[in-house]
Amino acid sequence: MSIKFEPDRWLESAKEWALHAGGMMQQGRANAEFKRDYKAGHELVTSVDLAVDDYLCTQIVSTFPGHLILSEESSPDLNVAMASDVPVWVIDPIDGTVNFAQGLPHVAVSIAVFYRGERWVGVVYGPFLNEMYSAVKGKGAWLNDRPISVSGRNVLRNAVVATGFPYQRDTLYELMGYVTAVLANCQDIRRNGSAALDLCAVANGQMDAYYENVKPWDMAAGALIAEEAGATIGAFGAQRAEWPKAINGDSLIVATPELYDAINTLLQESRIELSV
Amino acid sequence: MSIKFEPDRWLESAKEWALHAGGMMQQGRANAEFKRDYKAGHELVTSVDLAVDDYLCTQIVSTFPGHLILSEESSPDLNVAMASDVPVWVIDPIDGTVNFAQGLPHVAVSIAVFYRGERWVGVVYGPFLNEMYSAVKGKGAWLNDRPISVSGRNVLRNAVVATGFPYQRDTLYELMGYVTAVLANCQDIRRNGSAALDLCAVANGQMDAYYENVKPWDMAAGALIAEEAGATIGAFGAQRAEWPKAINGDSLIVATPELYDAINTLLQESRIELSV
Repeated sequence: MSIKFEPDRWLESAKEWALHAGGMMQQGRANAEFKRDYKAGHELVTSVDLAVDDYLCTQIVSTFPGHLILSEESSPDLNVAMASDVPVWVIDPIDGTVNFAQGLPHVAVSIAVFYRGERWVGVVYGPFLNEMYSAVKGKGAWLNDRPISVSGRNVLRNAVVATGFPYQRDTLYELMGYVTAVLANCQDIRRNGSAALDLCAVANGQMDAYYENVKPWDMAAGALIAEEAGATIGAFGAQRAEWPKAINGDSLIVATPELYDAINTLLQESRIELSV
Repeated sequence: MSIKFEPDRWLESAKEWALHAGGMMQQGRANAEFKRDYKAGHELVTSVDLAVDDYLCTQIVSTFPGHLILSEESSPDLNVAMASDVPVWVIDPIDGTVNFAQGLPHVAVSIAVFYRGERWVGVVYGPFLNEMYSAVKGKGAWLNDRPISVSGRNVLRNAVVATGFPYQRDTLYELMGYVTAVLANCQDIRRNGSAALDLCAVANGQMDAYYENVKPWDMAAGALIAEEAGATIGAFGAQRAEWPKAINGDSLIVATPELYDAINTLLQESRIELSV
């Protein structure tokens, strides 16, 4: 099978499917018809997560036969997928599932395409905020067809920093060490609920930095959007070796170029090596 | 001067002025014309805060002569104001000023009326979310003219809890003790930026609980809205004696009736008596 390199077509498909997925979320919430379940570590999943995952996978398979898929809900084996030399779709049907179930607006569908180990396409759509973020490698980042860029904030004391907390709480004291350092040295911290939208908020200049330990599907699209908007991306700690760097969300840190070093240093120096 | 008791008229005025104030915020942000300044402890204030405060005070004085006003920006002397036997307007022109300056949507104007030590009218309007919350004592709580009520959540493990952090960070370790306890025992924590909207989120069932140390103007309206939506309100720690109970934001805790005791106990047992 011949596979074409056509990132602009991947982008258009991702945006179209993200809009449809957003409609499924809006309808699911309006009808309050979804079921809730808890995976290991009290991680919530709803029937809408599964339905959107199924919809996206079906679209990808039928539109781009031969492409590979990584999804939180259906195929989490990174090693197999990323070793292949074909486009890989990395999707999170609902990023911010707890918010979705609570009726909060900070919820998104995240769709990314990687090719030969690089981020090529990223789409993050927040249906309850009417925010469609998108980026193609080398072509900039967009919010609803308006180009966006990072804030340019350069003083740590005035920086607003987003973060999140994993469902598994076995590193709680380490997490609290970071939060304490940020609160003591920055303007304030925000914990909104969707990592994908937090990354887009840095891209859009609404946040000045973001850090968290996340999974590939949480950060795949948002990292490209932030990068194309001018953010600096890296790691403030160790990353597992078996995940490709471009979709490795371990110790993820994203900031304006002016703040990156200062926040990276702050987090590294405040690390507490304890677990509850 | 004869002063009438007419809470329904106070409500209509508050909603009308909140809408206008929201328009001032939207225009100020669109024009990016506001100036930023930092009060003591790195607390941000913008020229739009001051303009909205001036607008609201002017409206109150001209429409309800003889009424008193408490505002974050202009008249913070609680003792004088609340001792009088006249209606007291407690206003926060922009609750969530940092969010306002960052371009984030979680921002509100808060307007409340107290009479003889009781909460009578509360209006919280989020112009970037198109959310107008309102309540009159004994008549329920509303979002955009739709009645709202608390979530009914009764399991601590599944509760989503909102909080905030004061600008002065002299009790940072105490704050971290609470956050650690919530993360270890509840579904998750949220830190959005506007206390007034966090209180309304509990009222609307989007959050299951909220706790923070806040000022009277941050919580005056939201507390009535949460209460009228069925929430239980109290204190998880000491409250300064000189503030009237109805507008005392020290150790404020708001939750569904089913969760109130559990979260109150959790916070009290996790108190760390340290300061940085």
